[in-house]
Amino acid sequence: MNKINLASKLALFADHWNPRIIGDLNENHIKLAKLQGDFIWHQHEMEDELFVVLKGKLMIDFRDGVGVDGIRTVEINTGEIIVVPKGVAHRPHAKEEVHIMLIEPKTVINTGALENEFTRKELQRI
Amino acid sequence: MNKINLASKLALFADHWNPRIIGDLNENHIKLAKLQGDFIWHQHEMEDELFVVLKGKLMIDFRDGVGVDGIRTVEINTGEIIVVPKGVAHRPHAKEEVHIMLIEPKTVINTGALENEFTRKELQRI
Repeated sequence: MNKINLASKLALFADHWNPRIIGDLNENHIKLAKLQGDFIWHQHEMEDELFVVLKGKLMIDFRDGVGVDGIRTVEINTGEIIVVPKGVAHRPHAKEEVHIMLIEPKTVINTGALENEFTRKELQRI
Repeated sequence: MNKINLASKLALFADHWNPRIIGDLNENHIKLAKLQGDFIWHQHEMEDELFVVLKGKLMIDFRDGVGVDGIRTVEINTGEIIVVPKGVAHRPHAKEEVHIMLIEPKTVINTGALENEFTRKELQRI
């Protein structure tokens, strides 16, 4: 039972879209990630996913918009959180680098059912 | 899928040791609480518990200390987290008011197996 300083852990890596595991919470992993640029549309069929924005501005697109493209974008700033429920398609993106804490079941793969250059199956533990 | 601003939610209540539910994450609740003063020794037999310190300095005592009283105190500051594993006795306390986010299974009762004036069985959802 030791505390974890989030800034100290974030200082240990610099790459984007590559979450690190910093702890275990029941059936979940606690992760940190740095994001910048555009991720892909994906969904997690069985798992809700919590995003906690520690620094910066995270954008997440959803497909429940009322405009012609059907996309709704939620802007999540420092000190804000969002839960993406299981089965809901979403696309994270960030113009400037954003730091987040993620809490989600250990079964989650970052790209959902898709597998591509963004997929990270073995996450580093820091 | 809407974001939650933690400061806005924290502004909705002022009492201590009375967590509010702000969201659901798989089998867990996401909660906010304000703490000040001394809580009681307790443990959660089946549930790990995540404390995220949003503001202030949270102290948690554990019984694995090497001194004569056997107590070890961990100081968790803003931007730091700690996981208290299932079955581990702990006693939170805070000299000045501290704001925390808690993530823990929906089955958790704040005082564990004990029931006393601190026990909150029905938490308000805000």
